[in-house]
Formats: sequence, structure tokens, C-alpha cells
Amino acid sequence: MNIPSKLVEEAVNELSKFPGIGKKSALRMVLHLLKSDAETSVKLGKAIVNMRTQILFCTQCGNVSDKDVCGICSSVNRDREKICVVEDLRDIMAIESTGQFSGLYHVLGGVLSPIEGIGPSDLNIDKLMERIKTEETKELIMALSPTVEGDSTMFYLTKKLQSPAADAIKITTISRGIAIGGSLEYADEITLGRSILNRIGLEV
Amino acid sequence: MNIPSKLVEEAVNELSKFPGIGKKSALRMVLHLLKSDAETSVKLGKAIVNMRTQILFCTQCGNVSDKDVCGICSSVNRDREKICVVEDLRDIMAIESTGQFSGLYHVLGGVLSPIEGIGPSDLNIDKLMERIKTEETKELIMALSPTVEGDSTMFYLTKKLQSPAADAIKITTISRGIAIGGSLEYADEITLGRSILNRIGLEV
Repeated sequence: MNIPSKLVEEAVNELSKFPGIGKKSALRMVLHLLKSDAETSVKLGKAIVNMRTQILFCTQCGNVSDKDVCGICSSVNRDREKICVVEDLRDIMAIESTGQFSGLYHVLGGVLSPIEGIGPSDLNIDKLMERIKTEETKELIMALSPTVEGDSTMFYLTKKLQSPAADAIKITTISRGIAIGGSLEYADEITLGRSILNRIGLEV
Repeated sequence: MNIPSKLVEEAVNELSKFPGIGKKSALRMVLHLLKSDAETSVKLGKAIVNMRTQILFCTQCGNVSDKDVCGICSSVNRDREKICVVEDLRDIMAIESTGQFSGLYHVLGGVLSPIEGIGPSDLNIDKLMERIKTEETKELIMALSPTVEGDSTMFYLTKKLQSPAADAIKITTISRGIAIGGSLEYADEITLGRSILNRIGLEV
């Protein structure tokens, strides 16, 4: 692309660094900004810079936070015996929106992925080990994506947690199966197979 | 969405003002910035603010430019007798990349759209009228999108240009038809119909 303005080119280059946004989409975004008033762009630019430079990460769970300890970790109403291990902020938001979990979280910041060069030292694992030793944790709930990477991370953590020190901790994972409202016909074989293996007794 | 950080929420709100970017995509973008180093976000934020606050619009053609008069308008190698009327920067880039046009451009900044409240006064039309009166223009080439809005803008401009003052100016439009390499089978009826009506004599 031969953009006739250095300023536009620079903005297009920076915007196209986002995953899934190519040069054409970035140019469309720039044209949108050019059609809006300058105030919009200034607010956007400031919001991005402030967000990245002022954000804190909760010293307990590793979640993004405006304070040293996030709202969930500092709340007195949460069940401190359960820690739900997740990949990032989005998973916390998804679980919180269900209203079904009142425990604490621990954000790993990703999953193990040899292809992308993400090893155990890149994840927030040491802090998790420290937490289960020093806090009153009784159950760790693994809520990672049902992918190869998610499963290996779960396996790695489970192995690591089976040390004598962590004896009293129960490790669980969120259940996999047919989605509510989903039809058996359209479920993939692996999910359907697992949901038969992990069948649940009905109380009558 | 219940985002636990005001800083993240602010960035998500600003990013989701882009057309086609919802809150979920904006949150994905923010998470990408959080995983990258702070420098990336600072560069992005600055590029956006600089682009919008420092950009100039060519006083001749209305295209975005880093100078008062853009590179095309100030070039001595362009054919000053032809002006190609386009909607925005992207159209100029697309036509320039064909290498088939060496004239000047005129950027309208949009097309007439009663639904979106865009009338003739919102477009860069007065300057176009001034240009064809003061410059050596002999041909105006309409290169607007083949939509209802594009067609009505073209019709409006043609009517306006048929005043006595603009007598000597030839008005043309880029040809519509079956794309090169396109199959008749998959062409829509309107395009195919028009391409039969506007058939071209073969030179033998």
C-alpha cells in the first residue's frame, strides 16, 4: 500500500499490529478517525496510553486492577477456600457473569504452548504455589480452555500440586459436555464421548 | 460487561467506537496491549493523536496530506486536464496502484446519503466547482461506488455541472461490468444487464 501521508502511514502501521487487523482494516479505522472530530482521537490515544502505563496487576491473583489488590481478592464476601485458575481477565468476567462462583481467582496469564515459546516460567505459577501454601485454600478449580494447550497446562499444574505440601487440596476442573440447549446431533464426537464417560447420576 | 478496571473499561469504550468493533473485540485488543510491552501502547497512542491533530487536507483536492498541497496536486508530471472524483483516500490508493491514471483527483469525503444525513453541503463539492472554473480541466471522471448513494451523488454532480459555465467539460464514469476473470454464471443480473447495454465494439 502506498499511503500518501507519513502520519496516516504511521497510524496504520501501529493499528495493524493488533492480531487480526491487517493494513486495510487499519486504514479503514484511520479514515473513521479522520471523519470524526479530533477530540475522539485524542481521547482514544490517551485512554490507550493511560491504560497501559497506569494499570496494575493484583499482587494476589495477577488480574489487571486499578489497585494493588483487586476488588475480588480484597472482598470480605468471597469464599477464600476456593481458587479458580483461569487464563486471563476475560475468563474471570465470563465466570463472574454466571453468578455461580463466589471464590477467588488466579490468573495464569496464558497457557503452556511450546509452539509459541510459552513455558512454565512465563506463567503466574509460582505465586499460585505460594498462595496455596500460605492461604486457606481447600479446592483449586481449573477453568482453562479445552484445547491441547489448556489440557497440558492443567496436567502440568496437577502434577506439580501433587507434592506432599499440597496434600489437603482438592483439584477439580469445570465439566465438559453438551452445551445447555445444544443438540446431540451437532456435538462433536470427542465432546459427546467425554460427556458419556463423565455421566452424572440423576437424583430421584 | 463488568470490567474490573476503570482504565481497561475506558480503553475498551474508546476502541469500541470504531465501526465493526464491539466490546468483545475491543477487550481482545486491550488484552493484546497488556501482554505487549508498554512501549507498543505508547507508540500506538501517540501515532493516533499525532495523525489526527497534525494531519492537513490538501487545499486543492481535499485529500489527506502532510503538506498544504498534496504530492499529486503539486506534481508537474500529472495531466492537469483530467480530474477523477472519488469518495476518499482509499479510492485514490486503489486507482494509483493500477498505474492507469495520471490526472488529478478530487476527494468528496463521502457520498450523498439522506439516511445518514449527508447532504451536498457536507461534501467537498464547492471546491470542485471552483476548480473546474479556474483550472484547465477538460474531463471529470466519476469514480464513485456503484451503490444507490454513489449513483445519486454522480447524478447530482452531473446535473450541477451542466451549467453554462462548465460547458466545455466532458463528464465520464468508470465502466461497470463483469470483472476480469469473473464468470458470467456468478455475476448478478444488474451488472450483467448493464454490461450488455454498455457493450464495447471490438476492433478487428
